[in-house]
Amino acid sequence: MTAKAKMKTRDKILEKALTLFNERGTASVTTNHIADEVGISPGNLYYHFRNREEIIRYIFEMMEVESREGFGPIANKAQAMGLQAFEETFRFIQQFNQRFIFFKRELPILLMRDPKLKVRFDIAHQDTLSLIRTLVDGAVAGGLLRHIEVEERQLLAEMSWMLTLFWPNYLEISGEENFNEGLERGIAMIRLLVHEFKADE
Amino acid sequence: MTAKAKMKTRDKILEKALTLFNERGTASVTTNHIADEVGISPGNLYYHFRNREEIIRYIFEMMEVESREGFGPIANKAQAMGLQAFEETFRFIQQFNQRFIFFKRELPILLMRDPKLKVRFDIAHQDTLSLIRTLVDGAVAGGLLRHIEVEERQLLAEMSWMLTLFWPNYLEISGEENFNEGLERGIAMIRLLVHEFKADE
Repeated sequence: MTAKAKMKTRDKILEKALTLFNERGTASVTTNHIADEVGISPGNLYYHFRNREEIIRYIFEMMEVESREGFGPIANKAQAMGLQAFEETFRFIQQFNQRFIFFKRELPILLMRDPKLKVRFDIAHQDTLSLIRTLVDGAVAGGLLRHIEVEERQLLAEMSWMLTLFWPNYLEISGEENFNEGLERGIAMIRLLVHEFKADE
Repeated sequence: MTAKAKMKTRDKILEKALTLFNERGTASVTTNHIADEVGISPGNLYYHFRNREEIIRYIFEMMEVESREGFGPIANKAQAMGLQAFEETFRFIQQFNQRFIFFKRELPILLMRDPKLKVRFDIAHQDTLSLIRTLVDGAVAGGLLRHIEVEERQLLAEMSWMLTLFWPNYLEISGEENFNEGLERGIAMIRLLVHEFKADE
């Protein structure tokens, strides 16, 4: 088997696993199901990944790469966008979440089951929180948001991040099935929140 | 077996299942594990509950009863408490969540797996949202919160509910292990949010 063909099987496994996890939840999907759907033997799958946890960890790696690529342009324009940067960040993360919906849906339990994933997620979590905190600090420094104390800035950053992180779960448990309507409602919520902290004009 | 002894076994099964679900997650706990821990045969367990889903549904019923009992006094005092009612609601729900942590942790996946549970949860979800909306409307009518439009009131109610609902999950994925510190941080967040909408004095 050439290196290229090997790569392809590996990618196929990850993509198929992602689809199955999104549709059924990770607990209902075995490595045998995944191998079946890819049309390879279980032995061939084990050549690429030791178990389901390893597949989930590699999907998380895909998420990291895709989120860096997608978020870069927004981060670069943030200064120029003013308060809209908060809405655009929310919009980007929600669209991104759609592709990896199982991950947000099962996040606490996935981290509970796999300490290795937890270590990696912690880093990503702190990075995103810092990034949102930077948005808040920048908006306060630039006079877009009124002056609020450091503790309140941290709480505002955490509140925004939490609303962003769990919005897909909230839509799922609310039975919202129209992605775009749910997205617009979430954006209205973030706008309401951020505008409450707006500096007087 | 007397009716009372039967009742006891049934309760023991529910309490032990709750502990195991909280500790390990529902997917890692079979009805055999539960029977083992209660010290009864699997057949005896099946006499009380058909499967794990049915046990989860009865735990949800326990939650409903305990939450009505616990929340009644807060709801009755809400008018007199002013804006503190938001904090007290948050505090009560977080303490309540502790006992049923698996339910919040796995909520989207539990609802995805069991349509019967989803029907019951939907009702509870809409009830709680209405209750928080009533708190918001009352605070606006009473002049505690400034006048905001109906759509914004709904968004504020949803935002408060969402922060309350997913706060335990946020603490778990953040690696916060001190329940009281996490609780106080959440209360500070709710206070910050509600006070932003306070009427001018």
